[in-house]
Amino acid sequence: MDNNSPTAALLIIGNEILSGRTQDTNLNYIAKGLGSIGVRFMETRVVPDVESVIIAAVNELRKKYDYLFTTGGIGPTHDDITAEAIAKAFNVPLIEHEDAAKLLHNYYKENITEARLRMARTPQGAKLIDNPVSIAPGFIVGNVYVMAGVPKIMQSMFDAVKLSLRHGDIVYSEEISADIPESKIATDLGEIQLQFPQTDIGSYPHMREGKYAVSVVVRAIDKQELNKAVTAVKAMFKLYLSN
Amino acid sequence: MDNNSPTAALLIIGNEILSGRTQDTNLNYIAKGLGSIGVRFMETRVVPDVESVIIAAVNELRKKYDYLFTTGGIGPTHDDITAEAIAKAFNVPLIEHEDAAKLLHNYYKENITEARLRMARTPQGAKLIDNPVSIAPGFIVGNVYVMAGVPKIMQSMFDAVKLSLRHGDIVYSEEISADIPESKIATDLGEIQLQFPQTDIGSYPHMREGKYAVSVVVRAIDKQELNKAVTAVKAMFKLYLSN
Repeated sequence: MDNNSPTAALLIIGNEILSGRTQDTNLNYIAKGLGSIGVRFMETRVVPDVESVIIAAVNELRKKYDYLFTTGGIGPTHDDITAEAIAKAFNVPLIEHEDAAKLLHNYYKENITEARLRMARTPQGAKLIDNPVSIAPGFIVGNVYVMAGVPKIMQSMFDAVKLSLRHGDIVYSEEISADIPESKIATDLGEIQLQFPQTDIGSYPHMREGKYAVSVVVRAIDKQELNKAVTAVKAMFKLYLSN
Repeated sequence: MDNNSPTAALLIIGNEILSGRTQDTNLNYIAKGLGSIGVRFMETRVVPDVESVIIAAVNELRKKYDYLFTTGGIGPTHDDITAEAIAKAFNVPLIEHEDAAKLLHNYYKENITEARLRMARTPQGAKLIDNPVSIAPGFIVGNVYVMAGVPKIMQSMFDAVKLSLRHGDIVYSEEISADIPESKIATDLGEIQLQFPQTDIGSYPHMREGKYAVSVVVRAIDKQELNKAVTAVKAMFKLYLSN
């Protein structure tokens, strides 16, 4: 299932994910969002709050894919080093972004501090990403979209930038489940995949009320091809269930 | 906080994660498990079911870290291509592993099929990882630990291999939370971090009953250093809460 749709990767920056303190949910939100506009989500990396590691990952991924999203590390504290790392990755100075500083001054008024103004720092030339939840903005440099790690904030930032991304071919998908062990349908399912090469057929075993069950996910850009493959999977399930 | 403890990475193989169909929970389980034995969890990658991509990631990560864990793609269906990709990454033939085949024959008896025997294929020289949940084993080649993607199965496999890993220095951690906006404590927290360089201090903002709150996580190998830094954070919180 090849296509020319834009590609994207996600870089999750955060010790808290790799230490197990926090269960990431941003990947899943971004995956669904990219899918809804036909952007192909190719890769995710999770890295710690270490500058050299962030720089290397940013430079590799931004060259490899049309879009790179990052989450985490843009708050006011000493462990928020993403803005600085991105500036170094692009080899541009880290500056106080005028509009970002204004937003923070307006919001904090007489309680503005140096730490709070840290959240106005962006690589030179960055465009801001609106943060309706807690004001401090994300930013865009080149094809890199730098967003907060807190899910509620990340979601509002991602929803805002999603509108500006180049859309691709939508991949339609349908999921069919049955109480059959996956290994029983494996050969037939492989044949259905060969029969419909324009579809991507995935098979996911699980337990349902103590019984082996399988979910088959068919994905395709062409809805007719999708329907044909789904019909074939359903017919196969019916055969096994009646035996 | 430097140390000589072993390092590890995780490679999550699965279209279902990148399509948003499935919320991964294996990363978090492995993170906690590695932490409990002092293995430093350095990186995670999520890649699709594409052979060349899996091979490249396996070869990069297995050379970079002491241990590489993979999840997903070792079932009986056509989209399960992990075993073959790992064999190619190590440049060894993919064979039917005698002990694995025996396990499957014993379990399926007269219902054994070619598809089911696919789950006995490993790179030559692999050792098996026990699967008490659904029989079909994982395997170890070199420093690469290949496990199932279904969380229940992955967990039992990981718990089994965890015992055989080289242990490192345990990183102790303590979390302190308060209803204070993160940006208010940012400067003081940065100073505490400078004062206790043998600790790693992370700051995580969130909302609690509609109020801004912050959780500070202090991590250290030296328990005394941990306690000192925690005491300093608590004293700082007290000061802000009494104002």
